[in-house]
Amino acid sequence: MPDVSVSDVTYEDLAQLEQEFDDAELQTLREQHKIYAPLYKKRQEVVAKIPSFWALVLEQAPTEFENYTTPSDSQVFADALKSIEVERFEIDDPNGSPRSVAIRFHFDSNEYFEDKVLEKKFWHRRALDGWSGIVSEPVKISWKKGKDLTQGLTDAAAALFAARKKQDAAQNGSSNGQSKASKIAKLPEYKAIIDKIENNTEAALSFFTWFGFVSSHGYVTAEESAEASKKEAEKRAKRANGEKVEDEDVDEKDDEEDFFDESEICPSGEEVAEIIVNELWPQAIKYFTAAQEADDDDLSELEDADLDDEDDDDEPVDIRSLVPGKGKKENGSSASPPPKKRRT
Amino acid sequence: MPDVSVSDVTYEDLAQLEQEFDDAELQTLREQHKIYAPLYKKRQEVVAKIPSFWALVLEQAPTEFENYTTPSDSQVFADALKSIEVERFEIDDPNGSPRSVAIRFHFDSNEYFEDKVLEKKFWHRRALDGWSGIVSEPVKISWKKGKDLTQGLTDAAAALFAARKKQDAAQNGSSNGQSKASKIAKLPEYKAIIDKIENNTEAALSFFTWFGFVSSHGYVTAEESAEASKKEAEKRAKRANGEKVEDEDVDEKDDEEDFFDESEICPSGEEVAEIIVNELWPQAIKYFTAAQEADDDDLSELEDADLDDEDDDDEPVDIRSLVPGKGKKENGSSASPPPKKRRT
Repeated sequence: MPDVSVSDVTYEDLAQLEQEFDDAELQTLREQHKIYAPLYKKRQEVVAKIPSFWALVLEQAPTEFENYTTPSDSQVFADALKSIEVERFEIDDPNGSPRSVAIRFHFDSNEYFEDKVLEKKFWHRRALDGWSGIVSEPVKISWKKGKDLTQGLTDAAAALFAARKKQDAAQNGSSNGQSKASKIAKLPEYKAIIDKIENNTEAALSFFTWFGFVSSHGYVTAEESAEASKKEAEKRAKRANGEKVEDEDVDEKDDEEDFFDESEICPSGEEVAEIIVNELWPQAIKYFTAAQEADDDDLSELEDADLDDEDDDDEPVDIRSLVPGKGKKENGSSASPPPKKRRT
Repeated sequence: MPDVSVSDVTYEDLAQLEQEFDDAELQTLREQHKIYAPLYKKRQEVVAKIPSFWALVLEQAPTEFENYTTPSDSQVFADALKSIEVERFEIDDPNGSPRSVAIRFHFDSNEYFEDKVLEKKFWHRRALDGWSGIVSEPVKISWKKGKDLTQGLTDAAAALFAARKKQDAAQNGSSNGQSKASKIAKLPEYKAIIDKIENNTEAALSFFTWFGFVSSHGYVTAEESAEASKKEAEKRAKRANGEKVEDEDVDEKDDEEDFFDESEICPSGEEVAEIIVNELWPQAIKYFTAAQEADDDDLSELEDADLDDEDDDDEPVDIRSLVPGKGKKENGSSASPPPKKRRT
């Protein structure tokens, strides 16, 4: 071990390095986008011709994803999911972030809701308290009568969000000495959503609550993010000059985080988005192929044993039995199938 | 949904797309390497001055990693781990893969083993049966007398590997109509390792068994990989020309995979490598910072309550109590701490 004491390294050096790693991650996302964009476009064209492609991908999704879907959700996907699209919609915006991402679900006409497209946008923003991360806005789903799989949770999330917006506008951004959190707790829509969450534990399991997700931290507006980013840039410039930089607001952040979890109808919303963006989307063909192979395995077992229980997976619902058409086995792929149904 | 039947899409189209995604991944790894290489170099210089930096990073590692380490392992890291290095050693080799990676652990003189460096190399290779993935060679650790945390498992893995090599050389690569697997099962070193695994369930939990890891599929030589890659390139060329390509060997692959798990002393070896390469290494500063903050939290709890139980984590051993020096709290980082000890 080098004969140097801890004091020879300032923690500012580490903070400076962290900034450079953060920039490197953004640069990597941009390079990756350039490499993959034409491929994703080509893939969309090919898979558009395969009925139930995306429903089969979701069926074969990683185990963590399964925890966020119910048999009813799977039925909706099997009946009506046309395609999924993921777009880094701020990649070319100098004021935006390559981490911001839009996830669009396209549906055929169906018995559950009126919407043909449900688009969930995630903005990467910075809060004035020092936090940075992903925030979203609740998407109102036009559920058909008696068909709301979330039992009003997505409606309630949209209503709370609208009420917050109105409150903010009325107070013209001033905090009146109150924290964001305590102001929101006074809204009737806040109490309503807390009640709904408590009384609808079953509905809270539906994948569609994800469309109501806001944030693990609390919503951050574009304006707040712009202001915080300006301050952060000043800090970074100081740090790059070797000046010491203080971070004042670290403790407030903890309180906010504690508070917001209660009104969040989909506390795992960020994780669900990450699975879609980082696993299902880039590996869709592998998941689809694995679904085909699992299907073939089931069929050959049927032939061998002449039994009727092709449904020997541990999934609650096997979407493969729900979708209308399926293709023939694909043997040409050289890559390994995704982990979940890997042949071992 | 477009009015097109499944037969309009050949599965060759999907296989072709998969190849292009595979190439895109390699290209991304190369770009990422260019972006990060100078940063990693700079970081190594900074953290070399912080005693126990890497031991603290390992202590704060993701939960999955904890499953692969014992309290004795943590003690070795606390006593003697100097640094960790990750290198994509084939990145500039046209016959190599950017997925190949070397992980080096540097140690001070210590009471456990003679080695100053333990280097574990993972080659990304292609087998003639169609499989492709990561293989490694067992690293023999020069344990001091009575100090082998693996109770002979790493020695046994090295012995089996050497015996296999000798067997292959003697048979000059010919299979004599036997599968790789059945040839190996006849080696006395094979029976020895199976016995050792069965009788040393405790030792098999040590992190150091990872140095004996070979593969989840079975070792693949550089020669086999070169031959398989040549065949694969021919297939790819055909497919790019729109010709149909058959994959003959898919079934044999399953048997091999089933077989090899039995003599593998670290069945999760690939997962452990992935955690180090994809999480601990890129996020080391965040893990270190989180360790410092967790430490500070413990101290302030102590001050508040005047109690003696600072060790209220659920880890079996808290390495922070084992390492000699620790730094002051680092508040300047703008990024979130890694998930495990995130303040909520």
